Amino acid sequence: MSQPLVVGARASIKKAFTSADVEKFAQVSLDTNPIHLDEAAGAASIFKQRVVHGALVSSLFSAILGCDLPGEGTIFMGQTVQFKAPVFLDDEITASVEVTEIRARRAVVTFKLEAVNSEGKVVIAGEATVMAPKHLIA
Amino acid sequence: MSQPLVVGARASIKKAFTSADVEKFAQVSLDTNPIHLDEAAGAASIFKQRVVHGALVSSLFSAILGCDLPGEGTIFMGQTVQFKAPVFLDDEITASVEVTEIRARRAVVTFKLEAVNSEGKVVIAGEATVMAPKHLIA
Repeated sequence: MSQPLVVGARASIKKAFTSADVEKFAQVSLDTNPIHLDEAAGAASIFKQRVVHGALVSSLFSAILGCDLPGEGTIFMGQTVQFKAPVFLDDEITASVEVTEIRARRAVVTFKLEAVNSEGKVVIAGEATVMAPKHLIA
Repeated sequence: MSQPLVVGARASIKKAFTSADVEKFAQVSLDTNPIHLDEAAGAASIFKQRVVHGALVSSLFSAILGCDLPGEGTIFMGQTVQFKAPVFLDDEITASVEVTEIRARRAVVTFKLEAVNSEGKVVIAGEATVMAPKHLIA
């Protein structure tokens, strides 16, 4: 199922966020900033159109870490993200994680994070630290 | 509407995440880790019950920054969060932000972030950096 948890191991996920996704996220997060929800507010912004919440896009990293690499049983300890460029509705985003460090004694694993848009432009860069299930640590 | 954007200015928001919130977030983020969604998986985890996605809880900071302080027109540049303790369903979380630094020339504002549960325990701590609307910078 899961691939070996070694430095250099990578996993990724793709998603294009729809208007309905952004509306649902606004409801559950309380982030109803009109730049995300309202066509006119998007058009009036420096981005000239509605943008997907950065917090929603960056949750793709949590999806990879919790469901794929390391996968189930992983405990998310922390995350640093820089929002480099806006994410627009319906543009397919590829989020990927890569193991950069494994501290075996406490099963603490550090990942480089990167999300790119359909043109290959980096939209989010960052780093996450998790506690991985001990049986996955060599 | 918005309060003055000065060092020490604070704003907060409260929310108890329901099972329905967590299910919606799982759909839009693709984070379907069973520890969030399945009673049995939660019970089998070190937390002994389902936990709310950390990425969902930390989106409350984005809600404050985009909707209240600084408010509309704010551009989220980056965020660092440490997940200190699990967040359980239906427990009211208070997320708050406090201005710690304002770099007036580029309207870049740094905030301390903190979320506490209904017992006052810190569940998330961190820092965010935004570009604020220029008219809000003294």
